[in-house]
Amino acid sequence: MAKTCIGIDLGGTFVKFGLVGEDRRPAGEVFSLPTPAKANPDDVVAVMARGVEQTIEKYSLRREDILGVGIGAPGPLSVKRGILLQLPNMQTMRNFPLRDRVAEAIGLPATLENDANAAAYAEYLCGAGEGAHDLVMFTLGTGVGGGIVLEGKVLHGANEMGGEVGHIIVQPGGRPCPCGQNGCLEQYGSAMNLARYATKRIRREKPASRLTDLLEKTGAIDAKAIHDACRADDAFAGELWDEMAYYLAVGCVSICRLFDPDRIVFAGGMTKAGEDLLGPVRRHFQQQNWTMLETHTTLAIAALGADAGAIGAAGIAWDAFDSKPAR
Amino acid sequence: MAKTCIGIDLGGTFVKFGLVGEDRRPAGEVFSLPTPAKANPDDVVAVMARGVEQTIEKYSLRREDILGVGIGAPGPLSVKRGILLQLPNMQTMRNFPLRDRVAEAIGLPATLENDANAAAYAEYLCGAGEGAHDLVMFTLGTGVGGGIVLEGKVLHGANEMGGEVGHIIVQPGGRPCPCGQNGCLEQYGSAMNLARYATKRIRREKPASRLTDLLEKTGAIDAKAIHDACRADDAFAGELWDEMAYYLAVGCVSICRLFDPDRIVFAGGMTKAGEDLLGPVRRHFQQQNWTMLETHTTLAIAALGADAGAIGAAGIAWDAFDSKPAR
Repeated sequence: MAKTCIGIDLGGTFVKFGLVGEDRRPAGEVFSLPTPAKANPDDVVAVMARGVEQTIEKYSLRREDILGVGIGAPGPLSVKRGILLQLPNMQTMRNFPLRDRVAEAIGLPATLENDANAAAYAEYLCGAGEGAHDLVMFTLGTGVGGGIVLEGKVLHGANEMGGEVGHIIVQPGGRPCPCGQNGCLEQYGSAMNLARYATKRIRREKPASRLTDLLEKTGAIDAKAIHDACRADDAFAGELWDEMAYYLAVGCVSICRLFDPDRIVFAGGMTKAGEDLLGPVRRHFQQQNWTMLETHTTLAIAALGADAGAIGAAGIAWDAFDSKPAR
Repeated sequence: MAKTCIGIDLGGTFVKFGLVGEDRRPAGEVFSLPTPAKANPDDVVAVMARGVEQTIEKYSLRREDILGVGIGAPGPLSVKRGILLQLPNMQTMRNFPLRDRVAEAIGLPATLENDANAAAYAEYLCGAGEGAHDLVMFTLGTGVGGGIVLEGKVLHGANEMGGEVGHIIVQPGGRPCPCGQNGCLEQYGSAMNLARYATKRIRREKPASRLTDLLEKTGAIDAKAIHDACRADDAFAGELWDEMAYYLAVGCVSICRLFDPDRIVFAGGMTKAGEDLLGPVRRHFQQQNWTMLETHTTLAIAALGADAGAIGAAGIAWDAFDSKPAR
């Protein structure tokens, strides 16, 4: 029987489960169970164990064919120690040894990885980064997360705090970030901050824009409304959208100088805009990028969507429990 | 007899030779021979072969105890293919297969590495980065070079163009860089650019400063003059110096978010200023750095000086020809 690894992605609303085969590709559909109320640690472990059992039944797996289970969870966490550190939205799980508790409950070895890193690893294995030597992913959602995969390994750094691509400084002295820095990419490239700073500007400048009308009427605008206005040739919305693309491109240039990855992948809610996002980022990237040498980095939209976390977590488990490299 | 590797550092004026033992530390003094006029490729190979022979004689080495020879040379170059690409100051050596030509001439296996990477590797092995898990080095000279060492390996990237720490963008739309970008760290943090932009500002603003007098008198100022004026409490010089430190710190913050290295090392001419450089950079780093989590990165001045290239090149050869890891 073929060997497999099971991946688990712990989210605020759902816990997702995926299965990955020896070829490091999904060997089944990702399914989900609800995250227990208040994310009570024991309940979370129980749900994870239940999902693993359901996966085993669903695909008629033999336990001895499962190399291990990979867990992806919101950071910060310690991969080495397998513990969650301080989850902003799950205070109950602070310092919880999730990896070992799950391993114990299911009787299989387990790994723990940051969910954004797991998603980046999935794109590297079998998504928009397939075939790449090195991949850097930006996940553009409420914030800007992401992950860095170099030669098949997730970059963690000396104290497991690396790979925070959303907090590189793209505008020194720029917009204040809750992290304590100024001018983080997250302040310019996330869906939430795009909407937030648009709202600020509208209140201050009252520009002739459908966004001004929308804000007056509904009291709020979001990234989608800005994208829609953009598509309707609203000049003010176009300016906001272009500024976001500019800063994402500045971040990409610095990433290329440091890592020289062959693939930069964008994921998260903002990428619903597809080519409307990628096109302007690519254009600014070409304008901001050096001309001294050719850059062989391609920019792409993530391919695996919301399944990436569970698939990547399983891929990380493969990497940990199988001696043969993925490629 | 103990095994060794010989390191060679190709510079514009001198070719340096170093010896590194099994403990990955210098096993002899670095010495140098003049770089052949016009850097004629055959002459360069001959000088390298001569230096290797002199090293063998000087330390009474047996050829069978020499695992190999590591060469460091100015980039861009291809480590994989062992060839120099386009050396700005050595056009004659364009596309020259230096690694294999030297290996053939001396009858020993050889490696080729970028000289800045080799120097960073030396600091990692036995200099200011000793004991570090990950190290990022900024070499502040005419330009800003450097190297990135992660878990004992030099970062090259998918197309061997990574590790260009001097060309991360620290001021979008900022000072134009010959590389084709704007706002590269090199434009703010190199000795040459510090002096260049100081000269520009003096000509434009004619500030009350000893630098204005010096420029009028001698027609030129350099980084050392700015540092000297700084030490004499010249306000204008202090402003220039502080701006440089600020941008170096901004670069360090982004480096920490991406790599989370435990050591950032500064090398090159500017570091003659010692604590006068490191102090302000550290202060700005603390001010610009996030407060969300503690950062365990220490900033230090390089320890090996001009010997780093030859030592590091030998270390790279050890890494290539010895199956046992350095630590």
